[in-house]
Amino acid sequence: MKSYIQEKLDTFKKINKNRARLLINCADQPGIVGAVSQFLFEHDANILESNQYSTDPHGGEFFIRIEFEINNLKEKATQLEEDFQEIKNKFQMEATFKFVDQVKKVAIFVSKEPHCLLELLWEWQSGDLMADISLVVSNHETSREFVEPLGIPYYYIPANKDIRKQVEEQQIQLLQEHDVDVIVLARYMQILTPHFVETFKNKIINIHHSFLPAFIGAKPYERAYHRGVKLIGATSHYVTNDLDEGPIIEQDISRVDHRDNVEAMKKIGQSVERSVLARAVKWHLEDRIIVYGNKTIVF
Amino acid sequence: MKSYIQEKLDTFKKINKNRARLLINCADQPGIVGAVSQFLFEHDANILESNQYSTDPHGGEFFIRIEFEINNLKEKATQLEEDFQEIKNKFQMEATFKFVDQVKKVAIFVSKEPHCLLELLWEWQSGDLMADISLVVSNHETSREFVEPLGIPYYYIPANKDIRKQVEEQQIQLLQEHDVDVIVLARYMQILTPHFVETFKNKIINIHHSFLPAFIGAKPYERAYHRGVKLIGATSHYVTNDLDEGPIIEQDISRVDHRDNVEAMKKIGQSVERSVLARAVKWHLEDRIIVYGNKTIVF
Amino acid sequence: MKSYIQEKLDTFKKINKNRARLLINCADQPGIVGAVSQFLFEHDANILESNQYSTDPHGGEFFIRIEFEINNLKEKATQLEEDFQEIKNKFQMEATFKFVDQVKKVAIFVSKEPHCLLELLWEWQSGDLMADISLVVSNHETSREFVEPLGIPYYYIPANKDIRKQVEEQQIQLLQEHDVDVIVLARYMQILTPHFVETFKNKIINIHHSFLPAFIGAKPYERAYHRGVKLIGATSHYVTNDLDEGPIIEQDISRVDHRDNVEAMKKIGQSVERSVLARAVKWHLEDRIIVYGNKTIVF
Amino acid sequence: MKSYIQEKLDTFKKINKNRARLLINCADQPGIVGAVSQFLFEHDANILESNQYSTDPHGGEFFIRIEFEINNLKEKATQLEEDFQEIKNKFQMEATFKFVDQVKKVAIFVSKEPHCLLELLWEWQSGDLMADISLVVSNHETSREFVEPLGIPYYYIPANKDIRKQVEEQQIQLLQEHDVDVIVLARYMQILTPHFVETFKNKIINIHHSFLPAFIGAKPYERAYHRGVKLIGATSHYVTNDLDEGPIIEQDISRVDHRDNVEAMKKIGQSVERSVLARAVKWHLEDRIIVYGNKTIVF
Repeated sequence: MKSYIQEKLDTFKKINKNRARLLINCADQPGIVGAVSQFLFEHDANILESNQYSTDPHGGEFFIRIEFEINNLKEKATQLEEDFQEIKNKFQMEATFKFVDQVKKVAIFVSKEPHCLLELLWEWQSGDLMADISLVVSNHETSREFVEPLGIPYYYIPANKDIRKQVEEQQIQLLQEHDVDVIVLARYMQILTPHFVETFKNKIINIHHSFLPAFIGAKPYERAYHRGVKLIGATSHYVTNDLDEGPIIEQDISRVDHRDNVEAMKKIGQSVERSVLARAVKWHLEDRIIVYGNKTIVF
Repeated sequence: MKSYIQEKLDTFKKINKNRARLLINCADQPGIVGAVSQFLFEHDANILESNQYSTDPHGGEFFIRIEFEINNLKEKATQLEEDFQEIKNKFQMEATFKFVDQVKKVAIFVSKEPHCLLELLWEWQSGDLMADISLVVSNHETSREFVEPLGIPYYYIPANKDIRKQVEEQQIQLLQEHDVDVIVLARYMQILTPHFVETFKNKIINIHHSFLPAFIGAKPYERAYHRGVKLIGATSHYVTNDLDEGPIIEQDISRVDHRDNVEAMKKIGQSVERSVLARAVKWHLEDRIIVYGNKTIVF
Repeated sequence: MKSYIQEKLDTFKKINKNRARLLINCADQPGIVGAVSQFLFEHDANILESNQYSTDPHGGEFFIRIEFEINNLKEKATQLEEDFQEIKNKFQMEATFKFVDQVKKVAIFVSKEPHCLLELLWEWQSGDLMADISLVVSNHETSREFVEPLGIPYYYIPANKDIRKQVEEQQIQLLQEHDVDVIVLARYMQILTPHFVETFKNKIINIHHSFLPAFIGAKPYERAYHRGVKLIGATSHYVTNDLDEGPIIEQDISRVDHRDNVEAMKKIGQSVERSVLARAVKWHLEDRIIVYGNKTIVF
Repeated sequence: MKSYIQEKLDTFKKINKNRARLLINCADQPGIVGAVSQFLFEHDANILESNQYSTDPHGGEFFIRIEFEINNLKEKATQLEEDFQEIKNKFQMEATFKFVDQVKKVAIFVSKEPHCLLELLWEWQSGDLMADISLVVSNHETSREFVEPLGIPYYYIPANKDIRKQVEEQQIQLLQEHDVDVIVLARYMQILTPHFVETFKNKIINIHHSFLPAFIGAKPYERAYHRGVKLIGATSHYVTNDLDEGPIIEQDISRVDHRDNVEAMKKIGQSVERSVLARAVKWHLEDRIIVYGNKTIVF
């Protein structure tokens, strides 16, 4: 990694060494917020941000994300998690502590079109995407020149549907060697097998070039053009085995009109794609997303 | 019609008595703009606005909309149209002159939910929708109280799929008696027969409560909620025999998040529906829309 | 008030008879959320929504808004407020309980242009603005016809700067007779005296027809046109003695271009004005706004 | 310049070798469009796009931009311009032919913050900004590493108000050596003298980090924060001698709320700045902008 980016990451880790996030979901019931707040208070935590949501205050599912600081957090982290076990059991919670200075390891997959990859690299260089971009994987050589100068390894793995299994084995091995936390499909135009998806459940973020569920599948801009729509869009979602059907993280659109042909729509769409994907990845890195069923809660 | 609205309309007609629009489409070929401009110049026309578009400058379809003024237009209108016949023939044009002071006669169809009707009435009262709203037709009594105080006749015609044919006969008779130019389906929840659609071709404007082609058909907000989308939208289109498949005039969206349940989405959506429909109707009244195949050119 | 609106209000009050909001601000310090949550838990409250914010987690100002339900709230309300006194004192809080079924009494002031008034009336009729619109005050007769048919008293009080004092005395007396909670200046083009403003501190909401602080003062559309801006906007704010300088609640903009003259800008702007004002009023009615210094926190 | 960018430019020039734009403004009068269309028809031009505007059809100023193709344009260009002289004289026009394959030479000026420079470079690399970026000038060394790898010369010229005159002399000499057509101030934080501005009249494009005329001058984000605005924006304009008062080309905004401190506003604002500036530069390169008085017509 280039030295000036490494420096930004080091500063970030230092500033955030006492900062953590607690993510909880459980059946909604009285007393949750009180118990959790009391717990944090007793552990000398300073709450920085807190967001909660219930699908239904009368018997729904409850979600909360609390960001907090504790002096000398590193030394106290294990004890904190142990102590929380009691509340976790009492309310039958799913609960996770995330420590902000443990920046996530990211793999980016890309095919021919580099615009989404370039956006992520640019946000990363400017310090807006606090992650360790561990590797870029591509079935084309096109983007090598953007990646290697930044000190990120670039793996060219040719792929097509006939060799899918071997390709994915090679990819999985790489991802495990680099111990990645999240895989970003930045316009990677290969279908993933259920095995791959299962191996990285809720850890694969895709960008689809339409405002789903419109134009599911291939060639959305062509189909948008022929339908004569006045808006085109992009959707970022977690990947599941149902193609383009995973939990949606973020969507946005841009206006088009009769003068825009397919080529123009693609250009306009690329701009939407890159900002939608960048927002989704950022929220994931900041532990703002909870997947619940086939939906996301984004705090 | 209430006197203050009548007054606005009268003023509008007076101001625009010399104003017309010429709408043309034909195969793209050299010399069209020159010939038309020369024609208008020779007829002492003052061009106020001109918009053109070609699907492909090399052998595509050409469209132009010119708004112009001619002193004492009323006396010259017939001659103008006659004189234009030569150019029309030469370039094998579809061409129409629209005279601005001939405000269009509008029928509004509505079922239970009045928000789109109310928006149209409000834009009309404030002078933003220059039309003669000739009648409102509904299969419910709900909206009578909003309509009759404005001096607009309200026809309650109960409808369901078993009596569709008789209902439509009654409606068509009413529409012909009132000599309407355009029918606006302002959340009218009955399906129209091919006969009805054919009778008023490219004259029926509908509002669909989703960003088509997503959620074609019934209950789009329910389905949007279950899919977990982050945007909801509305689409205004001309009605054809293929349900929700007609030429799109306008679309827009609004942002939602995990906190919005179906009810909240409906509320948010209503606001989008009313502005999208109002824009589409306005453009139609101003002769800004040309239907070409299953698409619209909106100048 | 018209019977169908009264019915909506009655239903609203019935549904929300057990619902309240607690608004707090105080110096940020550990333990606040824990103490308040514990208090609500002990009083059998079911938390429906909770939002918090701190200007600075290390020694800043802390704000929280909690919406909750308690069975038989009416019988317990007094005790609840009494019991809370202890926490209030301990943390030196400003804290208020707001009971949702006590819908606010609203006065609307308007001059000649009715678009903002009409928007509020329309949102109110459709059940989106849960308030008791007690009276409309105007220095013109223009809007009487929109107001009286809805069963709302309309007071015509001619005004100009020479008789400002008498006019305001008359207005204040009316407002006090109707016991109003909030005054909405829906394009009321008279300046208020410091005495009037002081009498209804943080209770007067204005709409200014520019994206403040651009074009403070008179004739913003004219000035926007001459400056050649590409965006025009509107700002809703609480009224203070510094003209157009009060705490901003909401702003929005719309795009214009070289073809839009002053008249067109006004039309486009009116649409922004009415939605911005409606949102601001709605948030006020839902107790979502806390004024802090010259800013607002909108939860 | 890097070879793959050079290749894109070469392809662009080849594709557009027969394409030109005619920009006209003159007093509005009958017959202009007819005469120009007839002229182009007689010179075998195929019109690809045409936009016109009149400040007032009765005695205002008239503007038109026509994009067209003529076979073997290169050989006919001189004759074309000569022949047009007659129409030009007759209507007392300002008229210019712009040949699309003569891509403009651009100089980018930048200080410390590289985000706007990076956006322009990225759009350029991806083929969305068809220009010859001839040089980058900066009073800091920070951005050298982004510029030189692309084969663009980077000139570090330290600057401050005491040495303004010498600095500008050096800059002007460089700009003239490189024969630049347009200068983009991509967050260049030095004031330019009237002499510099005069030398490159209507050829210097600036980005100001507020929605002008709000927050003219220094530190707009700080002032936006203290005013408590709910929107922040950016403005791209041609530079004149009145600071931040030149003709506005494009503006846009982004929403902020009480949680956004100055630092957050800057981050959000940078994203608006870069897209606003990129759009403005693109329109300039495509000869879409006509400056008229202190305003722009953008076709």
